[in-house]
Amino acid sequence: MKKAYEQLQTYLERAQAFQTARVLFEWDNETLAPKAAGPNTSKVVGTLSSEYFSVITDPEVKRLAEECKEEALTETEKAIVRELTEEIEKLERVPAKEYREFSELTSESARIWAEARKNKDFESFAPTLRKLVEYTKKFASYRAGEGQKLYDVLLDDYEKGFDMKALDQFFGTLKDQLVPFLKRLTESGGTVDDSFLAGDYSEKDQEAVGRFFAEYVGFDFDRGVMAVSAHPFTTNLHNKDVRITTSYNDHVDDSLFSVIHESGHAIYEMGIPDELTQTLVGTGASMGMHESQSRFFENIIGRNRAFWVPVYEKLKSRFPGQLGEVSLDRFVKAINKVEPSLIRTQADELTYSLHVLIRYEIEKMLIEEDLDVEELPRIWADKYEEYLGVRPRDVAEGVLQDIHWSQGSFGYFPSYALGSAFGAQLYAYMRKKMDFEGLLESGRIGEIREFLRENIHKYGKLKTSRQFLKDVTGEDFNPRYYVDYLTDKYGKLYGL
Amino acid sequence: MKKAYEQLQTYLERAQAFQTARVLFEWDNETLAPKAAGPNTSKVVGTLSSEYFSVITDPEVKRLAEECKEEALTETEKAIVRELTEEIEKLERVPAKEYREFSELTSESARIWAEARKNKDFESFAPTLRKLVEYTKKFASYRAGEGQKLYDVLLDDYEKGFDMKALDQFFGTLKDQLVPFLKRLTESGGTVDDSFLAGDYSEKDQEAVGRFFAEYVGFDFDRGVMAVSAHPFTTNLHNKDVRITTSYNDHVDDSLFSVIHESGHAIYEMGIPDELTQTLVGTGASMGMHESQSRFFENIIGRNRAFWVPVYEKLKSRFPGQLGEVSLDRFVKAINKVEPSLIRTQADELTYSLHVLIRYEIEKMLIEEDLDVEELPRIWADKYEEYLGVRPRDVAEGVLQDIHWSQGSFGYFPSYALGSAFGAQLYAYMRKKMDFEGLLESGRIGEIREFLRENIHKYGKLKTSRQFLKDVTGEDFNPRYYVDYLTDKYGKLYGL
Repeated sequence: MKKAYEQLQTYLERAQAFQTARVLFEWDNETLAPKAAGPNTSKVVGTLSSEYFSVITDPEVKRLAEECKEEALTETEKAIVRELTEEIEKLERVPAKEYREFSELTSESARIWAEARKNKDFESFAPTLRKLVEYTKKFASYRAGEGQKLYDVLLDDYEKGFDMKALDQFFGTLKDQLVPFLKRLTESGGTVDDSFLAGDYSEKDQEAVGRFFAEYVGFDFDRGVMAVSAHPFTTNLHNKDVRITTSYNDHVDDSLFSVIHESGHAIYEMGIPDELTQTLVGTGASMGMHESQSRFFENIIGRNRAFWVPVYEKLKSRFPGQLGEVSLDRFVKAINKVEPSLIRTQADELTYSLHVLIRYEIEKMLIEEDLDVEELPRIWADKYEEYLGVRPRDVAEGVLQDIHWSQGSFGYFPSYALGSAFGAQLYAYMRKKMDFEGLLESGRIGEIREFLRENIHKYGKLKTSRQFLKDVTGEDFNPRYYVDYLTDKYGKLYGL
Repeated sequence: MKKAYEQLQTYLERAQAFQTARVLFEWDNETLAPKAAGPNTSKVVGTLSSEYFSVITDPEVKRLAEECKEEALTETEKAIVRELTEEIEKLERVPAKEYREFSELTSESARIWAEARKNKDFESFAPTLRKLVEYTKKFASYRAGEGQKLYDVLLDDYEKGFDMKALDQFFGTLKDQLVPFLKRLTESGGTVDDSFLAGDYSEKDQEAVGRFFAEYVGFDFDRGVMAVSAHPFTTNLHNKDVRITTSYNDHVDDSLFSVIHESGHAIYEMGIPDELTQTLVGTGASMGMHESQSRFFENIIGRNRAFWVPVYEKLKSRFPGQLGEVSLDRFVKAINKVEPSLIRTQADELTYSLHVLIRYEIEKMLIEEDLDVEELPRIWADKYEEYLGVRPRDVAEGVLQDIHWSQGSFGYFPSYALGSAFGAQLYAYMRKKMDFEGLLESGRIGEIREFLRENIHKYGKLKTSRQFLKDVTGEDFNPRYYVDYLTDKYGKLYGL
């Protein structure tokens, strides 16, 4: 008689195959698929989702998962069964028909969003967004525990251990500390010239530079590809097929840092060991943990003066006309210019978390306070004016800028700010253990990456973000490190 | 109580989704996937294949398909049930274990073939090829009717109504007529200068030209994409997502005519109506019928002087350095240059079917006469010498040139020659019904395409190729048209 755990494997392989196929369809949809393909392809994706749903909610799977708990399992096996049990609980409460409808909706909605954004036409996306919110709330209500808030259900999906109470506190700290600091900084009158980062940067050259820096920070092109999409993202079929995208405009720093950011995500997934990939624990621990890595590579490494010491000449040689006369210090100041702005993905490191704060507050209103989607453009604009002092002229640079809601992802945004804070806490610890800036200056970035791989990536989903922070830094999550990192770095750069 | 036919739909949708996902993985593998992805992705594709197998061989599916036959079905529904029944019969006789072993073998064997071809090393592929032949024969033997030859079982998969008896006759006609004609032509001593087709044709310009001509002949870029792969091919997820590839070298005509060829395949699939797409009859009728369209666009249209009258200036303006001094007539002669050669995919229109003839004769020997694969390189070379007067110097330009056998496709090759002959028969009929060359000369290619759509494409798999020929031209298949077309066209071009 085979062990229950072994019997489970056939089911898990099937679930894995359906998920992987869905990932490929999503990738294809964002990067290549012809525009008329939508509805027909959605049917296929809907069927694959239903198949996934059927496997996970198969009573036999539940029985085997229960039976496993009596068997002598390794830690990894236990973690897989734990993940499976959570997935079962998450799905079994949702009626199969609704799950399928939602899958079909989300496979269409990103396209509708992209079109609406292009046309700066919120109305054409509003009905879809309303449906997405309704499904999200309904599904959360099926899963909510006794007295549990719906938004807390969603937050838990992306980041275990961080509910509204924890996030109110976290964002409260940021608001209290960063808003006045930002005010001091902008009023200090120091202006930074970053005009040379915009101009005649050809797409071809930007792509070549992007590939160079992706590889330089550790992206392995034998195990990954880089393509173009409207909104940069990372996805992966498994640890040997990890894909990033970027987009190009006339600001060279936009594509450059988006590539380094997505490479951070990719390096995480490429660092998952063969024993874990294609299992339920074979991916990054959480959205926040993922952002901790991508933003670590983008900001803590990529916007660090030390990082540029060995490679700035390389960049200059590709763009002699634009950067030939620009010194390393002027360049580093420019890529760290603080300027309250409208687009989250282009925000500087200091104001970034305020963009996230706005989304957090709006999501709470959408999910907890029945805010109608029609109100969104106005509320969005008001909050930007309040926290950042800027007001979008249209919805493309306002409420339609992010893809997340169009994919049915609510509760995801806070991870961006949490991830940045996790990264800062890791950085503070690493600086005590190694000559961080010295390694960067001598081009030995591989040793930094190796630390992250050894302490984080190789564990996949075997730990939560809070456990990682404790195990690596010896301390629970502490947002103080993030605030200190930012005020210290930008205090120095702006001579405050 | 739902009708059996309705109950079948859920199964068919699932089978369709698994197949579509496999198609996307194949496309991705040929065009983009990183090189290390292979083994992990193969597991996923293997699982999707097994799922397809399970659905089709589910006893409940067979029962419902039987029950359907008592119900009042439309013609389309009947055709779908007929296709399903054939697919069941094809798969249910193969033990699941062997089917999976064969799937795993074929997911590896194309790689082994590619490596062997690169190294010009037949021995490294021979054991795999031997296994492929063995599985093919075994599977055919499971399915063979009383007294039916194994190769006839395989031929029937690609082209219903054409068994060895029919093909011996068809290829016999070609051999009798074309081999002496070719001899006369090559001995006539007329040489054609096509040197200007090779040279400094940049990939970027070739791509732009390819896109122009794809669109000009009717490829709809809202419903399709064009990419690059080692060997040009067409695939489709459904009628609104049809994909072609090409490859670029310094011969502009290679990419140009491969794009027009693949566009012919694509236009066929784009012409499948919405009611049929994503069903078992929602694709081209047969391999031969497909080739009849692709080779119709490539040769009968694309290598026709009339085709170039309105667009040759367009091509010239893109390549003024290379074509500026070349007259339309010289260009048309060059793209129709006859020259016995070694590589099928680069063969001219006249000698093409002799390449196919050789493969047909060899496949018969492999499947029916127990020819050992070790003999292949020699037999291949001998036949090329006999029919075409050229002898390969190595296996890369000999027996290892085609991917088909490495994918387990035996019985496919004859479709290429049949398709060309179907096309010629359609052409002969169309010339009686419309001013074919006049339409081309005035750029009204859409009217020709419309005829094909209306008479062929829109029926999907509702008819066999023989039925199409009868219904459209009023006559059963007649290879005479093909021979006449070739001897007439090339007799004139070469002044014979």
